[in-house]
Amino acid sequence: MHDGILTIDLDAIVANWRQLAARVAPSVCAAVVKANAYGLGMVPVSQALWRAGCANFFVATTDEGLLLREALPQARIVVLGGVRPGREQGFVEAGLWPSLFSLDAIERWLVATAASGTSAPCVINLNSGMTRLGMSPQELQRFIESADAERLDVKIFMSHLACADEPGHPLNQQQLTQYSQLVPAVKARWPEVVLSFANSSGIFLGQEFHFDLARPGAAMYGVNPTPALPNPMRPVVSLRLPVIQYRTITEPSWVGYSATVQVQAGQRLAVVLGGYADGLLRRLSNRGEGELAGHRVPIIGRVSMDATIFDVSAIPEAQLPPIGEAWVDMLSPVLDVNLVAEHMNTIGYEVLTNLGSRYHRNYVGGAS
Amino acid sequence: MHDGILTIDLDAIVANWRQLAARVAPSVCAAVVKANAYGLGMVPVSQALWRAGCANFFVATTDEGLLLREALPQARIVVLGGVRPGREQGFVEAGLWPSLFSLDAIERWLVATAASGTSAPCVINLNSGMTRLGMSPQELQRFIESADAERLDVKIFMSHLACADEPGHPLNQQQLTQYSQLVPAVKARWPEVVLSFANSSGIFLGQEFHFDLARPGAAMYGVNPTPALPNPMRPVVSLRLPVIQYRTITEPSWVGYSATVQVQAGQRLAVVLGGYADGLLRRLSNRGEGELAGHRVPIIGRVSMDATIFDVSAIPEAQLPPIGEAWVDMLSPVLDVNLVAEHMNTIGYEVLTNLGSRYHRNYVGGAS
Repeated sequence: MHDGILTIDLDAIVANWRQLAARVAPSVCAAVVKANAYGLGMVPVSQALWRAGCANFFVATTDEGLLLREALPQARIVVLGGVRPGREQGFVEAGLWPSLFSLDAIERWLVATAASGTSAPCVINLNSGMTRLGMSPQELQRFIESADAERLDVKIFMSHLACADEPGHPLNQQQLTQYSQLVPAVKARWPEVVLSFANSSGIFLGQEFHFDLARPGAAMYGVNPTPALPNPMRPVVSLRLPVIQYRTITEPSWVGYSATVQVQAGQRLAVVLGGYADGLLRRLSNRGEGELAGHRVPIIGRVSMDATIFDVSAIPEAQLPPIGEAWVDMLSPVLDVNLVAEHMNTIGYEVLTNLGSRYHRNYVGGAS
Repeated sequence: MHDGILTIDLDAIVANWRQLAARVAPSVCAAVVKANAYGLGMVPVSQALWRAGCANFFVATTDEGLLLREALPQARIVVLGGVRPGREQGFVEAGLWPSLFSLDAIERWLVATAASGTSAPCVINLNSGMTRLGMSPQELQRFIESADAERLDVKIFMSHLACADEPGHPLNQQQLTQYSQLVPAVKARWPEVVLSFANSSGIFLGQEFHFDLARPGAAMYGVNPTPALPNPMRPVVSLRLPVIQYRTITEPSWVGYSATVQVQAGQRLAVVLGGYADGLLRRLSNRGEGELAGHRVPIIGRVSMDATIFDVSAIPEAQLPPIGEAWVDMLSPVLDVNLVAEHMNTIGYEVLTNLGSRYHRNYVGGAS
């Protein structure tokens, strides 16, 4: 008898990954499982993908890398946030590959690995135009020509797209050109290097964006990688919250914090256990919707920390399931993560990463 | 060598609770610790408050109640979300008091406790005008006059204010009147009942709102209970994120996802490890700010999932701490939870409940 129930369809994640892998073949398809697999559970998600044949994983932080290493002793694991000073030894021991994006970081990594008597396996991240993480082209060019370059064991040469979800954006082609210009020098210095450029949306920009290794994240989890077109991905998450009170209004009444909306006699409300502490951001106040007994029902009033109110007047009273059997679906095949993101005025990614810790997480599938 | 560090000052929470307790004395002051103590850690926060003399705790869900019972075997614990069908036995065994807000729920609680051979200790929640949870005045009046009322052991009679943070809002007085009208009948039926009405902001509406037991939550955690006036509470949380890359711009460049902003040659940027997956909501994009080396620095570009970019051009290059020693404060005495809430276009409560799970949570104080 749980309260909110978040169901994660591992088979759908695997099917989405396979679809993406087929799109990029013969290139290889990795999986981005950072931020606890976008809130869905890094370990069960990664284990299901590993069983499906995925061998390359990307996380954001050292702690994520160390946790994933325990779950997948043989996987290739890249830590996109790099290796911070003082944590190099943990990378060496766990066989994590840091993404390196400055000469300082490269120097530290060379010193740490030399002290361990190991090679210096790593990923080089190029800033091709997003201006977030990444070495500048000039910096990388100078490094390639330096004596230190020979000692560095560059496994992957990557860059990241800023506007891949807008196929017509000129920055896509500019980033592709910038990245491609560095490829010959990189391959000349590290002939075995794997080239990695495309994120989820980048996969849909065409084959010239695929290179050797694609890095989808969001699309695996059901976020539409092509926002202007129908979503080619399967939905992955569903979320149900229990109704804990019905109320039939008997006189004009204000609803919720700050009394933002009034209801009239005869209207019926349902209160569910679950609010913005569970990731139903306050922006859903008087905007979002749920599904109850097959009807779409609007959120009425402010979302509060632990409770959300719905106007269920459109449902005939006889059709309202009794307390204990009544659930409002907040994420479902109909109310998918992309639609909820519109209601929240954000992107599907943020809907997922905000999913709260009070839900019972129910995993289905994933055995393949 | 952690990544993001969230420091929670238990002494400040205790000091805030004591200030609130002094304001309501001789009434008693409880503590609302639902939603994992607003994201700050229910168990350490509650234990510190218990040591300071707090004996009454309010949580939202059954799971929270069961967890708190393990930590505080002797405390009074109220579950505001009530007891869902099938979970009554857990309440009986753990000595949790459910908040009851419908005749159905009362009936179930009477049956379950009778079967256990125990009394039926509980809290009655009245809807006095917020129209969220709570019995209607008519429903409660009818119940009081029924034979079942004698069997129910009502420990607390509560209601909840919708607009307490707006002292001039007419609903405050209306709710007070509605609640007060029921008090005589409730006290006649259950002479030992404790009256509980005021939340954090309600405490500041004046003594007539205090009744027997105040229920502050937000104010204990540093959220301003009097938004139109200076914050009387001590700041409780501080948050530091490590800088993982500096960049001096050499040519006009777009920054971050969707290329929302351009920078010029000579500008300097700092990227920190931490993004919207850590609770820095995307609404902070091009709006929020941090503190680095004593300077306030604006967020530039979109906040991404695991990284956030700051324009640090205003800091002389020689003053920039090296990577490994450079931290951007996102919550601090200067950038307090109320100011960050303004940047996020929300309330301090939501800033706190969104704080992510990747931070190292560092507790200081709390021994008293």
